[in-house]
Amino acid sequence: MIHTDILIIGAGPAGLFTVFQAGLLKMKCHLIDSLGYVGGQCAELYPKKPIYDIPGYPQIIAKDLIDKLMEQARPFKPGFSLGQHAQKLERNSAGNLIITTNKGTEIIAPVVIIAGGLGSFQPRKPKIDSLEFYEEKGVDYTITYPEKYRNKTLVIAGGGDSALDWTIYLADIAKRLILVHRRNEFRGALESVEKVQKLKNEKKIELITQGAVIQIEGKDFLESLTIEHQGKAIKKKVDFFIPLFGLIPKLGPLNNWGLETKSNAIVVNNSLDYQTNIEGIYAIGDVNTYPGKLKLILCGFHEAAVVCHSAYKRVFPDKKKYFKYTTIAGVEGFDGSKKAAKPSVVKTIS
Amino acid sequence: MIHTDILIIGAGPAGLFTVFQAGLLKMKCHLIDSLGYVGGQCAELYPKKPIYDIPGYPQIIAKDLIDKLMEQARPFKPGFSLGQHAQKLERNSAGNLIITTNKGTEIIAPVVIIAGGLGSFQPRKPKIDSLEFYEEKGVDYTITYPEKYRNKTLVIAGGGDSALDWTIYLADIAKRLILVHRRNEFRGALESVEKVQKLKNEKKIELITQGAVIQIEGKDFLESLTIEHQGKAIKKKVDFFIPLFGLIPKLGPLNNWGLETKSNAIVVNNSLDYQTNIEGIYAIGDVNTYPGKLKLILCGFHEAAVVCHSAYKRVFPDKKKYFKYTTIAGVEGFDGSKKAAKPSVVKTIS
Repeated sequence: MIHTDILIIGAGPAGLFTVFQAGLLKMKCHLIDSLGYVGGQCAELYPKKPIYDIPGYPQIIAKDLIDKLMEQARPFKPGFSLGQHAQKLERNSAGNLIITTNKGTEIIAPVVIIAGGLGSFQPRKPKIDSLEFYEEKGVDYTITYPEKYRNKTLVIAGGGDSALDWTIYLADIAKRLILVHRRNEFRGALESVEKVQKLKNEKKIELITQGAVIQIEGKDFLESLTIEHQGKAIKKKVDFFIPLFGLIPKLGPLNNWGLETKSNAIVVNNSLDYQTNIEGIYAIGDVNTYPGKLKLILCGFHEAAVVCHSAYKRVFPDKKKYFKYTTIAGVEGFDGSKKAAKPSVVKTIS
Repeated sequence: MIHTDILIIGAGPAGLFTVFQAGLLKMKCHLIDSLGYVGGQCAELYPKKPIYDIPGYPQIIAKDLIDKLMEQARPFKPGFSLGQHAQKLERNSAGNLIITTNKGTEIIAPVVIIAGGLGSFQPRKPKIDSLEFYEEKGVDYTITYPEKYRNKTLVIAGGGDSALDWTIYLADIAKRLILVHRRNEFRGALESVEKVQKLKNEKKIELITQGAVIQIEGKDFLESLTIEHQGKAIKKKVDFFIPLFGLIPKLGPLNNWGLETKSNAIVVNNSLDYQTNIEGIYAIGDVNTYPGKLKLILCGFHEAAVVCHSAYKRVFPDKKKYFKYTTIAGVEGFDGSKKAAKPSVVKTIS
C-alpha cells in the first residue's frame, strides 16, 4: 500500500504541474498513468509538434513542455505507477480514498485528483486469436522499458507515427526488427518516414508492406507469428510482437465510481474548487467539464493550482494555509534543493 | 477616437496574454497602462527577480516573461496608450463602451477587460511647492522615452531599485546626472548598488546623499532646483527632475464606475466568464476576486482565455465561434505572419 497526500490519476501536463503546486504547499503526490511514460497526450499524440498557446512560450514542442514540467516537479519527488490504470475506488473508515490499479497497486490518500485528459489510453488491438493470453508475455501495446528489447527479435505492426518512431528507436537496440504494415503508405512526419526508408535501405530493419500478422503462437510466452503477405503465410520466430495501431482514450473504470459525468467528461464545481460530486475527488484539465470550459493546457494549470489550495484543507485539516509568492519565498524541494531570488542589499555608496 | 474590439486596462502579464488569446479569435486589442512601459508589476516591482511558478518555466526572470508574452502577442498588433490611466466610462446608444484616459485619449470598444493588477501605479510624490505645475514640464515620475533625456541635465531622487537602475541606464544618455538620496544607504540588488558606486568613482554621475530636493523653479518649464545638503542649500540648473520614491497601486477612477468591489478588488462571476456586474466589462488577474481566488499569474492566463471566448459573442454576435487547437490550426497573426506545425505526410517506403 502506497501512502501519499495526493493521488493524481494522469501524468499529463495538468497532473505534472499539480505535483509542483502541491509541493509548494508541502504535499506529496503519487501519479498513475495508463501510458508507460509521463506526458499524456503531449507525449503520446503529438510529442514532436509545436504548441503555440502556452503562456510565455511563443512556441514549444510538446515533448519539451513535458520535460520542463518534469524539471519543475522533480524537486517534489513524485511517485509514479506507470503503465497501469486506476480501477477500483474505496473509502476507509477514516475517510481516506483507496485506489487499486489493474495491476493490483494500492494507493491511499486523503485527496484524489483526476487529471485524466481524454481518458486512459487503451490500445486498439488487432483481431488475432489468443492475443490477450500473450499480453505481457511477448505482446506489448506500449513501450515502457526499451532495454527489454535489446538483442531480441521484434515485429512492430502499424503505419503511423508510433510505429515509425519506435522502429527508428528500437532498430539499434533489437537484434532483428521487422516492421509490418497493411498498406504501402505510411502516415507520419516526413523526417520519420525518410529515416525508416534509410534503415530499410541499409538493411537495419526488414519491411513487409501490404502484410498483416494473422496468427501468434507459443507455449507460455510468445515464440513465433505468422504474417500474411500477398497471399502467402510467412512464419517468423520472434521474441516480441508490438502492434501499434493507435490508442483510444476511454474514461474506463472511472465510469463506475459514481462520478457525475456529461458528454464523457466529469462535472466539477468551477465556482469554487473543481471538486467532483464525490468528496475529496477533484477533476482538472481536459477530463472535466463546467459552463464555459475550454480544453486548453493553460486552463488545466489554473485548475491544478486552485485544487491544491482546496486539497490543503483536507490534507492538513489542522494547519493554517500559508500562501507565499515563489519570487519572495523561493522554492524548497523535498529533495533538499532550494531556489530563491537574490535578496536586496542595504549598502552605502561612499 | 480609437476603435478596437477589446480594450484592456493594464498591460501586465494577464493583459498581454489576452492580446494573444483574443488574436486567435481574430479580435483586436488596445491596451492602456498607467506605467510608461508594458509588464505591470513584473516590470515595475521585480523586473530582475526570478519567478518559479510559471507552468513550464522552472525559473524565469520577470522581465524575460514579459518579453516572451510580448513576443507571443506581437503578431496580433496590439495598440498601446501608455503612461495614462482610464478615467471616464460611458456607454453609447449602440451599447459600446467608451473609455477616456486622464490624458484625453478616447477608446471605444464592445468589450472592456480590466487586467489592472494591484491597480494603477500612482507615484509617491515628494512634498515640494508647485510640484504638480511642473509635471510633464520637467518633472517625471516614470520614464517612458529615455531618449528624451539625451544631453540633458537630470536630477534623480530616491534610494531604491528604480533610482539605482535608471541612474545606471541614463548615466550614458544624460549630459549630467545627479543622484540625490536622503539617506546614506541604498536598498537594491547588490549588482546595481555596485554599478552606481563605480559610476560615481568614474565621475560619470554625481552623488548627493543625506540630501533632498526642497524647491523647484522655472518659468513655463523646469529650469533649476535647490538641494538641501548638510544644512546648506545648493542650487542647480537642470532640465529634468525625476523623483523615484516608489509607486502606490490604486484602483483610482475605476472606483467611480459602479463596479462591485470587495477588499479593493473587483467582484467577478467565476462560475461562468469572469464578467463584472457591468455588462461587457470583465476583470482578470490580481485585480479581480471570487471564492477561492489565487493571485497567481497563471490564474490570470486562464481567466484571459475564458474571457476572450465570452467576449467573442459580444464582438461578433452573428458569427459562430470557432475553436481550434494551435497545434492543429497554427497561428495567423494580423501582421501576415503564420506559424504552423509541419503536416504529416503520406508516403510509401519502397
